[in-house]
Amino acid sequence: MEPNVYNRNCGSRQVLDRIGDRWSMLVVLTLADGTKRYSELAARIEGVSQKMLTQTLRGLERDGLVTRTVHASVPPRVDYALTDLGRTLLDLLAGLESWATTHLSEVQAARSRYDARVEAG
Amino acid sequence: MEPNVYNRNCGSRQVLDRIGDRWSMLVVLTLADGTKRYSELAARIEGVSQKMLTQTLRGLERDGLVTRTVHASVPPRVDYALTDLGRTLLDLLAGLESWATTHLSEVQAARSRYDARVEAG
Repeated sequence: MEPNVYNRNCGSRQVLDRIGDRWSMLVVLTLADGTKRYSELAARIEGVSQKMLTQTLRGLERDGLVTRTVHASVPPRVDYALTDLGRTLLDLLAGLESWATTHLSEVQAARSRYDARVEAG
Repeated sequence: MEPNVYNRNCGSRQVLDRIGDRWSMLVVLTLADGTKRYSELAARIEGVSQKMLTQTLRGLERDGLVTRTVHASVPPRVDYALTDLGRTLLDLLAGLESWATTHLSEVQAARSRYDARVEAG
């Protein structure tokens, strides 16, 4: 059977969830220009909790999009990088990022109109 | 200030959440070829609950991506269609759908490898 996101049980839906997830997108985009340490990711992606960043990185590693390398230094240094598979996402995710920033004001204006209409009954 | 998805308080993050959301993506893609009734959306997008579909449509309408038209028939007919803004998402979301189905087997293979490694300790 061909993968089909409209099918209830198709695993491609979980893949959509991964690549559509806000924190996953921001991690992948932050790794676009090369390997980063955990602390660099945490600093770049404002407001992500340590728990959420760790969980996001583990999910991306599990799905084969990111590699995790532990260096035997004191303290141990942990580096993250995109895999070849992860790299194939870059153009798509950059497109979503660009859409979100380009159309933000239109979306916000639409929300204000909707909320005013709902309040007016 | 320019919108920036890396900023903690930038509204573009909520826009990313909307356009990355699985059900929102599937609704927008289902509307690609024209207006649909609620029941047509529910039938096409397998496994979506009525509550979730209603909530997703309301969010898309609020964000200015979808229009909702109530026809004065008995019973009333409710149609949904993409706005011009919603239509600008189609190529991006079709790209994500295609990525998810094309790379599903690679992602599943990566998961199996990861899980075997974790189990092996």
